[in-house]
Amino acid sequence: MKDSVAVIGGGLIGISWSALFVAYGWNVLLFEPMADARGSIPSRVDELRKQVTALSPDLVDSGSLTCTQTLAEALEGCVWIQENAPEKVPLKRKLYADIEATAPRDVTIASSTSSLVWSDLSAEMANPSRLITAHPFNPPHLMPLVELFGIDSERLDAAADFYRSVGRHPVRMKREAVGHIANRLSSALWREAVNMVSKGIADVSDIDEALVYGPGLRWSVIGAHMAYHLGGGPGGITHYLAHLGPSQEKRWQDLGSPSLDTATRQKLVNGIELEARGRSIADLEVQRDEALISVQRALQGKRL
Amino acid sequence: MKDSVAVIGGGLIGISWSALFVAYGWNVLLFEPMADARGSIPSRVDELRKQVTALSPDLVDSGSLTCTQTLAEALEGCVWIQENAPEKVPLKRKLYADIEATAPRDVTIASSTSSLVWSDLSAEMANPSRLITAHPFNPPHLMPLVELFGIDSERLDAAADFYRSVGRHPVRMKREAVGHIANRLSSALWREAVNMVSKGIADVSDIDEALVYGPGLRWSVIGAHMAYHLGGGPGGITHYLAHLGPSQEKRWQDLGSPSLDTATRQKLVNGIELEARGRSIADLEVQRDEALISVQRALQGKRL
Repeated sequence: MKDSVAVIGGGLIGISWSALFVAYGWNVLLFEPMADARGSIPSRVDELRKQVTALSPDLVDSGSLTCTQTLAEALEGCVWIQENAPEKVPLKRKLYADIEATAPRDVTIASSTSSLVWSDLSAEMANPSRLITAHPFNPPHLMPLVELFGIDSERLDAAADFYRSVGRHPVRMKREAVGHIANRLSSALWREAVNMVSKGIADVSDIDEALVYGPGLRWSVIGAHMAYHLGGGPGGITHYLAHLGPSQEKRWQDLGSPSLDTATRQKLVNGIELEARGRSIADLEVQRDEALISVQRALQGKRL
Repeated sequence: MKDSVAVIGGGLIGISWSALFVAYGWNVLLFEPMADARGSIPSRVDELRKQVTALSPDLVDSGSLTCTQTLAEALEGCVWIQENAPEKVPLKRKLYADIEATAPRDVTIASSTSSLVWSDLSAEMANPSRLITAHPFNPPHLMPLVELFGIDSERLDAAADFYRSVGRHPVRMKREAVGHIANRLSSALWREAVNMVSKGIADVSDIDEALVYGPGLRWSVIGAHMAYHLGGGPGGITHYLAHLGPSQEKRWQDLGSPSLDTATRQKLVNGIELEARGRSIADLEVQRDEALISVQRALQGKRL
């Protein structure tokens, strides 16, 4: 039997991963425990797969998708397990026990978990070192980032190679943290975005536009640390820290700590409604995905 | 005499604005008080102007640049004043008094100030309503964002029109705030980026890569508020706030409040050195600017 990738869970993330793996030539065996949900999966995977090949037209696109009836069928002959079960610790722990009892020995179990951490997830495993967290940035078939954490460095090296082989950009964490890296950064930024709405400094759409036409644009090309390095002029980050470090610390003191109380929620909902200008979520997603494909094609080989 | 734009101050920001205005057909009269600095300005403006036309090849590029010997010469016949003096309140207040005494009456004085606020800057003016803050995101000839604040709404409408006419994307603030919008967002994000370095969660380069291949890429296309709207699925932001609002608030509690102490500074400097891989600031700037031009050409008309 040909090598395959097991995708566990056929929700949004599982479907998106499947589309990516199939587009990159893998045979995917997908297990979704809710039988009712299985019927629509192949056509949904197929739609997303087209976006992957739009982004990377050179792909041979020779993989296949099979929805299995049981977990054991999905695991048979697999060389990689991507787990996308609901974000509940007991449920995932039980699943890992089942996988350890069934899957080929030592195959890596990569959890797409967004909000949970490795130490909680691995606590009851026979061999915890075979679990890694491999958190994709949604949607994984279009966004390159995968954040890795685990305790077996050889396995993490192999994981980085695997994700690179399907066009992803893996990064490594040295310590686990709730929200990994990217969602912590997003959360920190959004806190101040919510603060400005709450305090009446600017409207939702003006804040979003300031981000998109300012720092968001910059951060599609260079990271925040590197941006401050360039912000220091010829002296770089050393000069920046010496001359502008104190004013940065002062600005940190001035940032807000909003709460998502009723009044703030209402301002956010009203602001988003204006910003959406009648476009549905589905319309906005189509527009977002097309733009993401265009940006990435333009950036190939050009990021710092 | 033909209408002209007065650019006051020939530092990095003044030069970048001048390149933009000239590329869009304006005659720019630039006053730099330090006579020694004037010699190199025309060639530096010319270099940046080429980047503007690389980004927007349709521009007729018919403007001109004149470095004047006095403030009065720069102001003569101007229809717009872009002020880029050093970030010191007394110096800018004195400058505004000189401008009010000399410039055509009622022409808007637009301050590029990054760290100061309108109420401080305008406090001693005969006609404070003619001052606006118009903060560009660096470098202004390549980054579309301009953040506007002032007290005269007609003047702000005209300012928005003026900046749109030179290819910028103006946003409005309803209340002044230190750091305007974009630098507050940047500052909030960087605080958590520094926190993760300080706590040993990830290396500088992994954090930068997580941003560039994850949220930065996303934010080049859609804003943070809109991203959470789409993150809520078919129910949008209302669903998101109801179901994930509490976990977001919990994550906010887990974000760090680092200080830029000696140990943290050293970690940042060491991390940036590794990330730069021997490339000089100048090399990195060239790479950044080329990538910024590519992304923006790809995104024309595609942002949400």
